Amino acid sequence: MSLKPHRKSPRPWRRLAGVALVAASLPAWSQPAARAASAPAAPATTVAAALATDPNVVGWMQGFPPPPDKLITHVPGGNKFPRNRWLFSHVRELVPTASVWRGPGPASTLPRAEQAIGAIPFTDADGTRRTFDEMLALTYTDGILVMHKGTVIYERYFGALDSHTPHIAMSVTKSFVGTLAAMLAAEGKLDPAAPVTRYLPEMAGTAYGDATVRQVMDMTIGVRYSEDYADPKAEVWDYARAGGMLARPANYNGPGTFYDFLKTLQKDGGHDAAFAYKTVNAEVLAWIVRRASGQPLAKLLSERIWQPMGAEQDAYFTVDSIGTESGGGGLNTTLRDLARFGETIRGNGRFNGKQIIPASVVADIRRGGSRELFARSGSAAALPGWSYRDMWWVSHDSHGMFQAAGIHGQRIYIDPQAELTIVRYASHPVAGNGANNAITFRAFRAVAEALAR
Amino acid sequence: MSLKPHRKSPRPWRRLAGVALVAASLPAWSQPAARAASAPAAPATTVAAALATDPNVVGWMQGFPPPPDKLITHVPGGNKFPRNRWLFSHVRELVPTASVWRGPGPASTLPRAEQAIGAIPFTDADGTRRTFDEMLALTYTDGILVMHKGTVIYERYFGALDSHTPHIAMSVTKSFVGTLAAMLAAEGKLDPAAPVTRYLPEMAGTAYGDATVRQVMDMTIGVRYSEDYADPKAEVWDYARAGGMLARPANYNGPGTFYDFLKTLQKDGGHDAAFAYKTVNAEVLAWIVRRASGQPLAKLLSERIWQPMGAEQDAYFTVDSIGTESGGGGLNTTLRDLARFGETIRGNGRFNGKQIIPASVVADIRRGGSRELFARSGSAAALPGWSYRDMWWVSHDSHGMFQAAGIHGQRIYIDPQAELTIVRYASHPVAGNGANNAITFRAFRAVAEALAR
Repeated sequence: MSLKPHRKSPRPWRRLAGVALVAASLPAWSQPAARAASAPAAPATTVAAALATDPNVVGWMQGFPPPPDKLITHVPGGNKFPRNRWLFSHVRELVPTASVWRGPGPASTLPRAEQAIGAIPFTDADGTRRTFDEMLALTYTDGILVMHKGTVIYERYFGALDSHTPHIAMSVTKSFVGTLAAMLAAEGKLDPAAPVTRYLPEMAGTAYGDATVRQVMDMTIGVRYSEDYADPKAEVWDYARAGGMLARPANYNGPGTFYDFLKTLQKDGGHDAAFAYKTVNAEVLAWIVRRASGQPLAKLLSERIWQPMGAEQDAYFTVDSIGTESGGGGLNTTLRDLARFGETIRGNGRFNGKQIIPASVVADIRRGGSRELFARSGSAAALPGWSYRDMWWVSHDSHGMFQAAGIHGQRIYIDPQAELTIVRYASHPVAGNGANNAITFRAFRAVAEALAR
Repeated sequence: MSLKPHRKSPRPWRRLAGVALVAASLPAWSQPAARAASAPAAPATTVAAALATDPNVVGWMQGFPPPPDKLITHVPGGNKFPRNRWLFSHVRELVPTASVWRGPGPASTLPRAEQAIGAIPFTDADGTRRTFDEMLALTYTDGILVMHKGTVIYERYFGALDSHTPHIAMSVTKSFVGTLAAMLAAEGKLDPAAPVTRYLPEMAGTAYGDATVRQVMDMTIGVRYSEDYADPKAEVWDYARAGGMLARPANYNGPGTFYDFLKTLQKDGGHDAAFAYKTVNAEVLAWIVRRASGQPLAKLLSERIWQPMGAEQDAYFTVDSIGTESGGGGLNTTLRDLARFGETIRGNGRFNGKQIIPASVVADIRRGGSRELFARSGSAAALPGWSYRDMWWVSHDSHGMFQAAGIHGQRIYIDPQAELTIVRYASHPVAGNGANNAITFRAFRAVAEALAR
């Protein structure tokens, strides 16, 4: 393992003066990030708030046993902020999980040349001047790793996270599932044009009974399912209870597994009417991927990606009561291995000296999905001009930026033009990324612009 | 990682003829193993029964979802034979766990020179002639690894286990806890002569209120707690429910954590009256070890043993509802890493070019505990002349053999005179090792004798 943390002595960033000029002369952006400011505003967050909720400062789960007011257990209602600041790096200690084995070989080398990009300035949505480092606290970052031209230039950990501990990726998981599906399609093992029922006959009487695999992959399914994390009655919580991600009330008699929950889903409008971001599509796709490959998701991910890319640590999926991985949000990885995956995608599928993912798969992701259907979605206001393809978010901006994103700030941000991959794990108080996108996109873009000089 | 499986082409065992002679001339043993035949007899087990219950043959948990009659879930009543044949290699998929990190370095090298010891014959307790390979099926072995003079001479996996998957070690876990306690004692961080209450004031009103740490380490505690796995009312099941190892009935209002359960334990006779094998002692010792070291068991094991010995894979502990590791039986490791630990102990604490465990600790284990107190215990009939020290079983036989043992056949068997370490994971139908000891000890001793020629 060649990657060593250099937390103590980053070299001064060599183009700092130039960056200041760049930032000072930033035009009013036409990038989606700028317009994302019109999305629901984040609650007031400050650097002090992030520091005060550092799980090591709070003292969650310290002592044998921890004091009652510092306990975090698997309880109904979940573990909201600030408990999530500890939880997201300790998921396996609360729920059953399946290992994604890294394989027998050595970890792949991540070249390193630290640059002090933390000082790169940008202007926040409200006009405040910020630095990249300030962004880290303001987005409740647990860890961030920046790679430029294949070299690690910045890596930091906070709170409960360190370089070898897996953190929950939330919906970044979906992009792994979408990529695996696209890989199977490229091999002819999965037909995107086929009806879902070719792989899942059980879904005949559901919203998916007349849908194609492609519609699932690109989330243009008309299904009654709310992903509104602010609404306690949203179906996302039923899904979470079915999958064992939320503890169940004593009188619970709902679906006991992901599969049983998926079979309850009913139509809401037609397919291909609009993009509609719904986690259940990722679970349906994960199910299709298992049937098409004959393998559990954890084993498939190990064999197809984790082992070939030379992951440094095993990853893991949370599983439901019958051992089914959550393909919608249950993957947990180290930040370094998330970076390896991001670099594999940025490298058109090539990494660690191997073509791990067919270049055609990455090209298809980068081309994106239907911008027209995306424009009709609830996501369009915050992300105008974007599309969604193979469970990746595609900006169609001047840099060709695309990303995997999960609630509370999880992110794989790939800027092909800047040859930049940024991976971040976070525990933001607000689930929806609307709360952090404005500052996240501005800070990441500022790094891209500065590095290009 | 230098250790590669050589399952297909073992070299003919070079002393096969000699072994046959050795076995043919075996005297009536005076070793405990021979007398263990007077312990409760195992139900009839046959090679065919083992093959028929191979989890891959049965098809547990195959398919998406698996058929209802092939499902294994975390249900009240546990998962008895033959489900345990799958479960013991998949524990983390049913319950929460804490990782024992292997560290950033390379795995230590295990030299390999395969020998076909499977053909070594021995005579079973009923006079039947058997081979070592037959023993594997008759003890429902999931994996076995034999090291002679520091070299792997034999390694086999069956059913659900392979070389990189952790298997539950059951009470072999206790020997890890005992070793860690002895290490802390050697460093002056834990005083065996001190009262338990110095570290655990909460235990003042319990069976342990007037006990010393040493009495816990050697299990000479008078505590009302039955370890009779055949009795559904034995307290071991209350302990399992408290720790979340068994699912709880809907109306459960018993202790919710290991700690809360331990605080209910009451005296039954005096201490130092007899050795009495009770899992709760290992949980109390694990608690003491956490308080004395200031670290969770998983982290302590990682830093003190797993990292220095160059483990090949992460291990893990099952944890209760507040994240407390089961020190009584919750450790899961690969067989290879169990072998590394066994070799560390056999090497008087030295392995991987380092003194990992003080030689004085291993010497203390090998000297054993009180044979007088052991003779007064329920364990003496099956293991006459033995003792128990630092949570290791010490035979005091002519080879100085000592072992760590867990229900259903888990084993670290160390024969210092033969320079032999055998580690085995198994899923025997019967929990108690009385059911497999007769054939296990005979087969292992036959290997020791044959190798010595």
